[in-house]
Parts: sequence; C-alpha cells; structure tokens
Amino acid sequence: MTIGRWAPVAHPDVESVVVDDVLRALADPTRRQIVRLLLAEGDRACGTFGLPVAASTLSHHFATLRKAGILRQYDDGRQRMNTLRLDELENRFPGLVRVVLDAG
Amino acid sequence: MTIGRWAPVAHPDVESVVVDDVLRALADPTRRQIVRLLLAEGDRACGTFGLPVAASTLSHHFATLRKAGILRQYDDGRQRMNTLRLDELENRFPGLVRVVLDAG
Repeated sequence: MTIGRWAPVAHPDVESVVVDDVLRALADPTRRQIVRLLLAEGDRACGTFGLPVAASTLSHHFATLRKAGILRQYDDGRQRMNTLRLDELENRFPGLVRVVLDAG
Repeated sequence: MTIGRWAPVAHPDVESVVVDDVLRALADPTRRQIVRLLLAEGDRACGTFGLPVAASTLSHHFATLRKAGILRQYDDGRQRMNTLRLDELENRFPGLVRVVLDAG
C-alpha cells in the first residue's frame, strides 16, 4: 500500500477537456518541455525533470498541465509521478500535442 | 488612393512570432471562428463576421490575432480588412493552424 505525502489530485475526464485549456497549458516553453520529456522517456517523478525553475513554479506548471487533461499524477511512495495522457488526447484532439511540440 | 478611418497597425515579422503567442491567440472560440471564416472564405472586413460579440470585444480579438502574426489588416476605403497569414504560419509552424481548428 502506498503512503503518499501528497494531497490527492483531481483529473478531468478527457471528454470534458476543452481545447482552449489545452492550448493555454501548452503556451509555455517550460510546460512544453515537461510534455516533451514525458513523451520521450515515459513516467517521471516531479523532482527529476532538471528544469531551471523554482519548485513552486514547477508545481504550478504540473497543476496547469493536469487540469488541462494533459498529464495524470499518481503517488509512488514518497514520489509524485507524472504520466502523459497521450492516447486520450490523441483520441480527442488528433495530432495536436505533436504539432505543438514540433512548433517550438 | 485609400483614405482610411483607422489608425495604422503594426504586424510582426513571422520570424519573430513565438508559438506561445499563437497558441494563446487561438485559445478562444471566437478567435478560432474568425480564423476559420478567413480560411474558408478569404479576406473579409471586420464588421462582416456576424459573430455574437460586442464591437469592442471583436476589435480586441482582431488585435490579438494580428499581434500573434495570424492575420494582417489593411484598409480598403472605409473598411478595415483582414487577411489570414496562412502561408507564413504554415512555413513557420507546419500544420499548427489546421490541427487547432480541427480540435474545436
């Protein structure tokens, strides 16, 4: 049984996700870099992205991506893990994530 | 010679446009509808889009799209016209505009 340090988090159903929120969430280079790393290397703990931003800022970025339906968070012991919801997003917004990542 | 009622407007070089601004500009259903109409039917005067929003709101939407490099505005007599910068955008961000419009 996992004993997490973290508050439980909510994830929207992909059907309730609107493209406005996805676009706003992806309109930030740090958030795109998070998505790019998850896409390239799979699930990853919040503290392991190696991005040059403060922990509180990073936490905000993860929450923005989670609320937009882009990633799912789960606890693994003392780590908060992140997983990209790529299949769900692809189904709802075909091609969107990859074309945005390719754009910059 | 054209005598415009309008203040001159600036258009960013497509090379200076960043994807963050394009995504934020497209993260609004009214602005996507403007782009969709320009894509489907070509150049169009500001007052002819038939969108259910106040003129001042519409004016803000056009400015947002213009500053993001998505459309170009020019005067034709007393009308302010809008033209989509699709070729330039396609060249800089391949596939982006169409995949976003298809997304919703």
